[in-house]
Amino acid sequence: MRPLVLVDWGTSSLRVARASGSGWDERSADQGILKVAPGAFEAVLRQLCGDWLDAPNSLCLMSGMVGSRQGWKEAPYCACPGGFSELAQRLSWVLPGRIAVVPGMSCEHDGVPDVMRGEEVQVFGALAQLGLHSATVVLPGTHSKWVQVRDGRIVDFQTFMTGEFYALLRQHSILARTMAAEDGELDRPAFEQGVQHALGSRSLLGSAFSARTLALFDRLGPSASPSYLSGLVIGEELRAQAPHSGPVVLMGSPTLTPRYQHALALRGLSAQAAPAQATWHGLTALARFL
Amino acid sequence: MRPLVLVDWGTSSLRVARASGSGWDERSADQGILKVAPGAFEAVLRQLCGDWLDAPNSLCLMSGMVGSRQGWKEAPYCACPGGFSELAQRLSWVLPGRIAVVPGMSCEHDGVPDVMRGEEVQVFGALAQLGLHSATVVLPGTHSKWVQVRDGRIVDFQTFMTGEFYALLRQHSILARTMAAEDGELDRPAFEQGVQHALGSRSLLGSAFSARTLALFDRLGPSASPSYLSGLVIGEELRAQAPHSGPVVLMGSPTLTPRYQHALALRGLSAQAAPAQATWHGLTALARFL
Repeated sequence: MRPLVLVDWGTSSLRVARASGSGWDERSADQGILKVAPGAFEAVLRQLCGDWLDAPNSLCLMSGMVGSRQGWKEAPYCACPGGFSELAQRLSWVLPGRIAVVPGMSCEHDGVPDVMRGEEVQVFGALAQLGLHSATVVLPGTHSKWVQVRDGRIVDFQTFMTGEFYALLRQHSILARTMAAEDGELDRPAFEQGVQHALGSRSLLGSAFSARTLALFDRLGPSASPSYLSGLVIGEELRAQAPHSGPVVLMGSPTLTPRYQHALALRGLSAQAAPAQATWHGLTALARFL
Repeated sequence: MRPLVLVDWGTSSLRVARASGSGWDERSADQGILKVAPGAFEAVLRQLCGDWLDAPNSLCLMSGMVGSRQGWKEAPYCACPGGFSELAQRLSWVLPGRIAVVPGMSCEHDGVPDVMRGEEVQVFGALAQLGLHSATVVLPGTHSKWVQVRDGRIVDFQTFMTGEFYALLRQHSILARTMAAEDGELDRPAFEQGVQHALGSRSLLGSAFSARTLALFDRLGPSASPSYLSGLVIGEELRAQAPHSGPVVLMGSPTLTPRYQHALALRGLSAQAAPAQATWHGLTALARFL
C-alpha cells in the first residue's frame, strides 16, 4: 500500500497524521480553512507536513470543510446511500493521483437537503474499528448528526442545531439572566430534569421557557440552570428521533459523550462510545478502495 | 360607577386611558418599569395622569409587568383556573382603595410553572368584546401565549419563546450568514414553505438547519430567507399545539396577526382577530367585580 498522509481540515483547525507502527504520528496547526487565503492551501499543508507529502508514491486524503466552497476545492456531495466505494469514486483531486478531497454526503427529505463534510469518514472509521456494518451513529456537537448506516453504507442522516441552540439561549436569551456567568460542573439532577421535561414536551419553543419560570419560582438556582438547559436541548434532540433499530454508537467530546449516554439511558437506550482517531481509521480504510 | 384610570405598564412602555364618550382618552410615556427607579412609580404615574387620579372617588387599575418583582409592587400570581372574580379578589393595592395592581396568572404542568402578566386582562377584554365565553386565544410575540378559556375562566395556558427564537436565529446563528441584512417585505411562498416544513418536522433543532442547506443549494435566496425562518418558528409553534375545540382568537401586532392567520389556515384552522384596546375593555370589565 502507498504511504498515506491523512488530513482532517475543518473550519477552525488543521490536523494531519500518518501511520506509525501500531499508532499515528500527528501534527496540527491553528489553520482552519477560514484562516487560509484562496490559493494558499497547498503551501499551508506543505508547511505542516511537506516532508510526508514528498515520500515516494505518497497519497494524501483530506476530509472535512476543506471540500466546501470556502475550502481548497469544492467537492460535490455524494448522495445517500453511499459507502467507501461511492466516496472513492467521487474524490476531488487537487493534485492528480497525489492529493484528493473526500466528498461530503447529502440526503434529501421532502425537498429539503441535509449535508455533512467529514462526519461520513468518522462514521466509517468508527464502524470499521468496532466491526459493525449497521448502526445509528450519533455525533453530538454544534450541529449534531444522527447517521443511519445499513450494510456498510450511510442510508440517511439528519442534522440538529443542538449545540448552537444551547449557546444562543445560554448567551443571548432571556434565560441567561437567571444563570451563573460560568457553566461550572454538570449538575446531574438538573440535567436529568431538563432531559425529562423536554422528552415530555412537544417543542423546545415551549419547554425552554421552563428555565425561566423555574428560576422565577426559586426552584432552579443560577449554578444549576446551565445544566438544566443542556438537558433540555439534548432531551429535545432525543425526542425528535424516530425509533431506530440496531446499536447506537456515540462519537462526541469527553464533555458531551457522558451527557448523551445519560440522556439516552433515560429513554431506555444504551450507546457505545466510538474509538478515538475515527477519521484516521476511516481515511485509511477508504484508501484501500482506490 | 367610579371614574376609572386604566394603566398598562409593561417592561418598555407605560400607557394610561380613561373612558371618553364611546372611546378612550389615552396617554403614553417611554417609562417602562425597567426605567423607573424603586420608589418612583407613583411619581411617574402622577406625572402622566395626576389630573385623572385626582378626580373625586377615582379608581386606578394597573396590569402588566408593573406587578412583577421589578415593578411597583409584586402581585402574587392568581392560579388557574381563574376569571374576573378571582382576579378581583387578588388585587394588590399600592394605595388602598384607590390604586391596585391586577395579579398575573400562573399554571403548572408536571411540576413546571408557566406565568403571564397583562395577557390575562387582554384575553378577558377581547372575549367580552366578542361575546365569547370559551375560546383559544393566541397572543403572538416575543413570548407567545396560547390561552384556553372555558366558561369565562382561564383554565390553562402555555408560553412559546417564538419571537425570541426568531431574533436569536436571525441575528446570532449561522443562519444569519445567508440572509439579507434587512427583513424586507414578507415573501409569502417562502413563509409558507417554512410553515409546511416545520409542521412536517419533529423539532426546530432539526428543521432550522434547512434554512442553511436550502441556501447552500441555491434554493432559498437571501431576501426570502427571513420569511422562511419566520414560517419555520411559527409553524413550529403551531405544530406543538394539542388539538383545541372552540373558536381561535388572535391578538397580535399588525405584522404578526396575518402571518399567524396564514399559518393557521395551512393547518385548516380559521382565527378571528381580536378587537383593539382589549386591555382597556378588560380592566373596565374587571372593575365591575369590585
